[in-house]
Amino acid sequence: MAKVTLNDYELNYEIYGEGEPLIFLNGIMMSTLSWRPFVDFFKDYKLIFIDLIDQGSSSKGKEGYTQDIHVDMLEEFFNKMNVNKVHMLGISYGGEVAMKFALKYPEKLYSLILSNTTSYTNELMKDIEDIWAYAAGTYNGRIFFKATMPYIYSYKFYEENAKWLKDRENLLVNSLTPEWYDGFIRAIRSASTLNITEAIETIELPTLIIGADLDVITPLPYQEVINKKIKDSRFVVIKDSGHASMYEKPYEFAALVNGFLKNYDKKINII
Amino acid sequence: MAKVTLNDYELNYEIYGEGEPLIFLNGIMMSTLSWRPFVDFFKDYKLIFIDLIDQGSSSKGKEGYTQDIHVDMLEEFFNKMNVNKVHMLGISYGGEVAMKFALKYPEKLYSLILSNTTSYTNELMKDIEDIWAYAAGTYNGRIFFKATMPYIYSYKFYEENAKWLKDRENLLVNSLTPEWYDGFIRAIRSASTLNITEAIETIELPTLIIGADLDVITPLPYQEVINKKIKDSRFVVIKDSGHASMYEKPYEFAALVNGFLKNYDKKINII
Amino acid sequence: MAKVTLNDYELNYEIYGEGEPLIFLNGIMMSTLSWRPFVDFFKDYKLIFIDLIDQGSSSKGKEGYTQDIHVDMLEEFFNKMNVNKVHMLGISYGGEVAMKFALKYPEKLYSLILSNTTSYTNELMKDIEDIWAYAAGTYNGRIFFKATMPYIYSYKFYEENAKWLKDRENLLVNSLTPEWYDGFIRAIRSASTLNITEAIETIELPTLIIGADLDVITPLPYQEVINKKIKDSRFVVIKDSGHASMYEKPYEFAALVNGFLKNYDKKINII
Amino acid sequence: MAKVTLNDYELNYEIYGEGEPLIFLNGIMMSTLSWRPFVDFFKDYKLIFIDLIDQGSSSKGKEGYTQDIHVDMLEEFFNKMNVNKVHMLGISYGGEVAMKFALKYPEKLYSLILSNTTSYTNELMKDIEDIWAYAAGTYNGRIFFKATMPYIYSYKFYEENAKWLKDRENLLVNSLTPEWYDGFIRAIRSASTLNITEAIETIELPTLIIGADLDVITPLPYQEVINKKIKDSRFVVIKDSGHASMYEKPYEFAALVNGFLKNYDKKINII
Repeated sequence: MAKVTLNDYELNYEIYGEGEPLIFLNGIMMSTLSWRPFVDFFKDYKLIFIDLIDQGSSSKGKEGYTQDIHVDMLEEFFNKMNVNKVHMLGISYGGEVAMKFALKYPEKLYSLILSNTTSYTNELMKDIEDIWAYAAGTYNGRIFFKATMPYIYSYKFYEENAKWLKDRENLLVNSLTPEWYDGFIRAIRSASTLNITEAIETIELPTLIIGADLDVITPLPYQEVINKKIKDSRFVVIKDSGHASMYEKPYEFAALVNGFLKNYDKKINII
Repeated sequence: MAKVTLNDYELNYEIYGEGEPLIFLNGIMMSTLSWRPFVDFFKDYKLIFIDLIDQGSSSKGKEGYTQDIHVDMLEEFFNKMNVNKVHMLGISYGGEVAMKFALKYPEKLYSLILSNTTSYTNELMKDIEDIWAYAAGTYNGRIFFKATMPYIYSYKFYEENAKWLKDRENLLVNSLTPEWYDGFIRAIRSASTLNITEAIETIELPTLIIGADLDVITPLPYQEVINKKIKDSRFVVIKDSGHASMYEKPYEFAALVNGFLKNYDKKINII
Repeated sequence: MAKVTLNDYELNYEIYGEGEPLIFLNGIMMSTLSWRPFVDFFKDYKLIFIDLIDQGSSSKGKEGYTQDIHVDMLEEFFNKMNVNKVHMLGISYGGEVAMKFALKYPEKLYSLILSNTTSYTNELMKDIEDIWAYAAGTYNGRIFFKATMPYIYSYKFYEENAKWLKDRENLLVNSLTPEWYDGFIRAIRSASTLNITEAIETIELPTLIIGADLDVITPLPYQEVINKKIKDSRFVVIKDSGHASMYEKPYEFAALVNGFLKNYDKKINII
Repeated sequence: MAKVTLNDYELNYEIYGEGEPLIFLNGIMMSTLSWRPFVDFFKDYKLIFIDLIDQGSSSKGKEGYTQDIHVDMLEEFFNKMNVNKVHMLGISYGGEVAMKFALKYPEKLYSLILSNTTSYTNELMKDIEDIWAYAAGTYNGRIFFKATMPYIYSYKFYEENAKWLKDRENLLVNSLTPEWYDGFIRAIRSASTLNITEAIETIELPTLIIGADLDVITPLPYQEVINKKIKDSRFVVIKDSGHASMYEKPYEFAALVNGFLKNYDKKINII
C-alpha cells in the first residue's frame, strides 16, 4: 500500500510486477485488496491497483461529484507516477469510469477491458441505487448486505457458497464504518447520470467485453450495446455467473484478461 | 367484494361470470383488485379472486404460519362455497400455494396454472426475503418500493413505463398501512422453508407453466425444474418480461391461460 | 377434401366447424392433412385448411413464380367462397405468405398468427434452400429426409422420438412422387427473394408471433425483428422446441392460437 | 510439413516455436493448414499441428475404423517424436478424439481444451452425418458445400461474410478430390457410435470448454454436459458465433486458449 497526493486528495494504490502497466478500476464496493488474489495470475504485467475517491483507503470525496472526477484524477495519477500508457480494466462502476477515460484520454491507453458494466444508468438501476443508498445510510452491515448481495452474486453462486457468503456478511458487518457508507452513497450517486452510449462509438481501442449470463444488474443486452458501439471489440460470456464474475469465476475471468492482452494489437488473417 | 368466515378468519373474495370455476391465487403483494382488469378476458369461466390471509382485505394472520395454512383454508373455502372442483392459477407466492394444494387435494382440481413461481426457496431468495421484510418494517412506502420493484419488473418495463411506475410508487406510499406491512412480513416468512421439488413429481394434473425470460427472482431454470418434475405439463415463455408477467404482458398472459384451459384435458394424436 | 378452380389452377381445401373463419397456411412440406389432428382443438372457428399451389393436392405451379402468386390466389379463393374476413395463421413458408397477404389485403383479415417464420430469406437460408432443392431433385426420399429433417426438428425431439421419425422417413420414401418433388423445388425457389422487413412496419393487425427456442432455421432473432416491426404484436416462445413447433409441442401451439383468438381485439386497462 | 511413419500409416504434421507442446486436433474437414494463421498468436508454446488419418495430407484409413484409431496413433506419434506431455486442444471431431485420449492416456496431458464438441453422437447428428456422407459421395463440391456449411457457420457470419463464403465454396469445388471425399466419409462414420458422457467423469485434467451461442450442431447444452461431468473445468461462451468459432471469432478463440494455458495449473484463493 502506498499513497499519492493529488490536490486535496490522497489516492491509495498498490503496484506489483514488471511489464506493460495494467490498471484495475474497482467495482463500487471493491478496493485494492479485492485484486490481491489475482497477482499471481497476471505475471507479465506491471499491475496497478487503485482505490478511487470514496473507495478503500483513498480520500473521501465531496458531495455531488460525478464519475468525471475519477477520470481526471487518474490522468494526474499517471503523470505523477510517470506512467505513459496502460491497459485499463474496469469492472461495473470501474468499467464506466474506464469508458469515460477512454473518451477523454485515448492516447494514454493500449487497450480497454470492460467487465459487467454499462454505458447507461437505466431507470431500474436508479431504483436499485436508491435502495442501496438507503441501506448504506442505515450504517447497518446486515441490511446493507441483504440489499446489495442478491444483485451482485448469481443464484447459483448463492446455492454453492452459502457459508462463504455468510462469513463475508459477518466481515462486512464488523468492518464497514459510517465514513465508508457515506462514501459509498456519494460514489453510487456519481453514476446516476451516466449516458455515454452514443459517445463510445468513437472509441477505437482494442476492447475486451466480459459479460455473465446470470448478471441481473448489468444484463447481457447492455454489454451487447457496448459491443455494437465499439468497433474493435471482442465479446465473451462467462457461463453460470452473476455480476461479480471476477469472484464467481476467477479462472475464467483471469484467462480472458490474459488471453486478450497477449495479442490485443495483433491481426490475424483468416477472413 | 364479499367475505366468508372460516374459523377465526375472514377471507375476502370476488366472483364473476359463469362456467367451470377458475381461482386466482395472488402473488405476495397482490389482492383481488389486481385481477379486475382481466375479468373481461376470461368470459368462459366462473372467476374466483381471493385474498389469502395477510393479503388485501382478508384477515391478518398469526405469527409463524407457513404456506400450509392457505392450503387448508382454501379447501374449507371451497366446501363452504359448494365449489367441488376448480382450475387453480397461482402466481409466484400463489403458485407455491397452488402446488401445495395440488399435492394435498388433487381431487379438487381440474388443472393447474403456474406463473413465475418456484418449488424451492433458494438461498438468494432468502436474502431478498430479508431485505423485503426489513423494508416493510420501516413502514415507509418509498423504501419498500425501491426494495421490491426492481425484482418485480424487468429493466425493459422500467424503461418503457417510468411514469406508470412513479405513479404506482405514489399510490403505494399513500395507501399501505402498518398492518399491511406486518402482514406482508408474515406472508413472506411463510415461504422461507418451501422445498417441494421432489414432492411435485406425484402431480398428475394437466399443468401450464408460464415463465418470463427476464424474471430475475424466479428465473427460467426454476420453472424448467417444475416442468421436468410434473409429467403432464406444458411450458411457455413470455418474451421481454420480468417476474410480474401478468402486468408486463397481460395479453400474452391471458392468451396462455385461455388457450390452455380451452383444451386442457383433450389429447391430440400427432406423435 | 374439396376443390375450387381459379383460372388455370385447382386448389384443394377442407372446411370444418362454424364460427369466424380461421385459415391455416402450410409450411412448405405440409398439406391440409397436417392440420387434421388439430380440428378438435379449434372448435370455436370455421377452420379452412388449404393447399397452396405445389402443395398437397392442389395444382402444380409453373416455373419461376414467387410467393406473390399465393397472395392473389388466396384473395380469389376468399371471393369465390364468399369469405369476407379471416384470421390468418401461417407457419414458416405459410407465415411469409400471410405477411404478404396482410400487406396487400389487410381489410380481409381480423388478425395474423405467425409461427416460426421470417420476413427475410437470409444468406444461410439460401444455401439450405439449395441443398433442399438438390435433395428433392434426386427423387430419393431417404436423401430428402436427411437433408431436411435436421433443420425441421430439434435435437431434443430427435432424441425422444427416434422411432416416430424413422416411421415418418419410411412414409416419405414411399409416398412422395417426382411431381411432388418438382413442386417442392418450385415452391422453395419462390421464397428466395423474400425481403419485407421494412414493409411490415405498416401492418396494424393484432398479431401473434410464436417462436421456438431451438429453431435453427428461423431462429428467435428473426421473430424478434417481426415483433419490433409490427406494432400490435404479442410474442411468445415455446420452450424445448425446434422449427416444427406445431408438431413438437402441439398443446402449447394450440393453446397460444386459441388464447390469442379469444381476445385478439379486446383491450385491457392495466398500464 | 513433415511426415512420420507409424505402422502402415504416414501422419502429416507441422511444428512451430518453442515451449510446452500444444497440439491441435482438427475438426473433421480441417487440416494443419487451418491453424497456420494462428501461429503468431501462440508464441509461448511448441505448436504441433497434425492431420489425423483421412485428414489433410495424412494417409487414408481403412473402412470401418472408429475414433479409437486416432487415440493410439497419437500416442505412438508422441513416443516417436519424444514428446512426453502436451496440452491437447480439439475442435468438434478433434475434441471427441481429445476426450478419448484423455481417458486412455491422461499421464500424457497437461491440460485439455475442448471447443464446440460433444461427448455423444445424438440422433440428430446421425442424420446430419448421413446427409454429409451422401453429399461427399457425389464428389460434387457445390453440393458438399451446401450440405455442410449451413451447419458450420452461424447465420450472422453468413450475412456478414457472403463473399468470403462464396470464395471458399469455389476453392472447395476446385480442390477436393474423390479420395478426400472418401476419407471424409470414413472419418464421419468413425464418430457414429461416440458415447463417453459417463466415462468422462473420471477426467481430472484442468479443462477449458469453449462453446458458441449460435452453434446448431453441437449446441451449448452438450457442452454444459461436459462441463458438469469434468470436475476441473472452466466454461466460456463466445457470443454471436456458430460451430466454427475458431474461424468466426479467431481473436476470442485465441484469447481463451492463451489465457487458460497461462495459469491452467495455478490455484487462486478467493473462495
